[in-house]
Amino acid sequence: MFRRVAIIGLGLIGGSIGMALRKAKVAQQVVGYDLGKGVGDHACNLGAIDESCAVLADVVSDAELLILATPVGPMRALLQDIASFVTPETIVTDVASTKVQVISWAEELLPSSVAFVGGHPMTGKELTGIAFADPALFQNCIYCLTPTARTNRMALNKVAAFVEVLGAHVHFLDPAEHDEQVAGVSHLPFLASIALVNAVAANPMWADASLLAAGGFRDMSRLAAGSPEMYRDICITNSTAITQWLDEYINGLCILRERISSHDSSLDETFAHAQQLRYSLFSSFLREDRN
Amino acid sequence: MFRRVAIIGLGLIGGSIGMALRKAKVAQQVVGYDLGKGVGDHACNLGAIDESCAVLADVVSDAELLILATPVGPMRALLQDIASFVTPETIVTDVASTKVQVISWAEELLPSSVAFVGGHPMTGKELTGIAFADPALFQNCIYCLTPTARTNRMALNKVAAFVEVLGAHVHFLDPAEHDEQVAGVSHLPFLASIALVNAVAANPMWADASLLAAGGFRDMSRLAAGSPEMYRDICITNSTAITQWLDEYINGLCILRERISSHDSSLDETFAHAQQLRYSLFSSFLREDRN
Repeated sequence: MFRRVAIIGLGLIGGSIGMALRKAKVAQQVVGYDLGKGVGDHACNLGAIDESCAVLADVVSDAELLILATPVGPMRALLQDIASFVTPETIVTDVASTKVQVISWAEELLPSSVAFVGGHPMTGKELTGIAFADPALFQNCIYCLTPTARTNRMALNKVAAFVEVLGAHVHFLDPAEHDEQVAGVSHLPFLASIALVNAVAANPMWADASLLAAGGFRDMSRLAAGSPEMYRDICITNSTAITQWLDEYINGLCILRERISSHDSSLDETFAHAQQLRYSLFSSFLREDRN
Repeated sequence: MFRRVAIIGLGLIGGSIGMALRKAKVAQQVVGYDLGKGVGDHACNLGAIDESCAVLADVVSDAELLILATPVGPMRALLQDIASFVTPETIVTDVASTKVQVISWAEELLPSSVAFVGGHPMTGKELTGIAFADPALFQNCIYCLTPTARTNRMALNKVAAFVEVLGAHVHFLDPAEHDEQVAGVSHLPFLASIALVNAVAANPMWADASLLAAGGFRDMSRLAAGSPEMYRDICITNSTAITQWLDEYINGLCILRERISSHDSSLDETFAHAQQLRYSLFSSFLREDRN
């Protein structure tokens, strides 16, 4: 199905893509490139790629599909670097968490003859790096593709076929809508987790209170373990949508605070509302409630 | 070790206590009482208790250890109800999530000759009811005991021995300190989860955005599935400590919001701080990071 697939960035996502492609035997060759010392060889040993390239021009050269599997932070420089090597025979896609900014860079920096398709798999772990790569990471996940008026339809179909090979479900949406939506269901949650950990741990009581931290705190603090640099770059490239969701969250917390302070006995209705929403979301969509 | 242990309230916690005691074979008899239709029989069938009592006076009668395994909400009425049956031969303990209020009710309502020891196991699930009871629920968990100046030392030792039979680690602390600490590590997290679910789901974008909700949102919304009535009663009986922690959380979120809005590139330092705290907490204390 694919002649040569190239992956730049062999971390959790890039490595898992390579493993899934090789497992599905749909590419004649999967090559990879990573700036990290020894990462390319590690990826080879783990079976994530057939061959590791030491030079950026080599990995880009002759690829039918080029996957930019880096976070949003280094993306602009990477697009700039590949611009002089990439030819119209190569379809370029990315996996970064915010799409408006990345697409504007791609449209600014890549030759207009090169097809670019923005992508974002809705999966991940708080653990990063090739060592945690897993060919099943994309199974049944939603994988957003965000075409624009300039997106080549044949390229879009090719990337959609690639997504299906990973075991994921293609979900098309507008880049700006994508950014607004993930700000609510993905970026706001990690900020809520980080603020929780920092607020609780900054308190003088923390040394004693941490002993009492159990499953609830563990769940609510998991996202705080994610990459600080990746989170920063997401916040900077999606600040408008994120601040809007944060305003709604803070407003809801302030209302809750007043009702608790006044011993409002109808608080349980607000809590029941959240319980109902949580049940309906995870029973109908994800079916993974007790994983 | 125990002659007769009585459990009032055969939900997740009461049922799990019964199972753990019977599995450890440390009580000659474990009896139970629950207001819910058929719950006592269900608990018998699951092996959580030896016998279900239909009448409150019968379950209290002759117990060496009486465990009040209800949430904080019905606790005052329950203490009132058992006050006329309970004798100085019975040690009474509870498992409710807030301790100052429960202990003041116990000291007000129980005869002064009856020993009461406040307790709170730092475990649980968002799932409630006898059907989810599990004898291993307390394995390696921290179990708070909150003696006061009035607490009988022999009774305290007996309850501590009971906690160890469950496989839990006894942690003694002052009732007010307990309430302040759990407000941070347990009550604030469930409020953060509820506010997150309600904020995100109230947005007109929710119908589309919910499709993109993945593991991060699932983790951060899990606590929102807990019992609304239990959460309300916790908030009402621990409102001062909870509002203080909420103020710190809201303040931290407001600062974060301003820094995101101004594209502050040192955001990653704040995020790295949370990451470090999360690592240190769960590597040193719980060792359950990847459960």
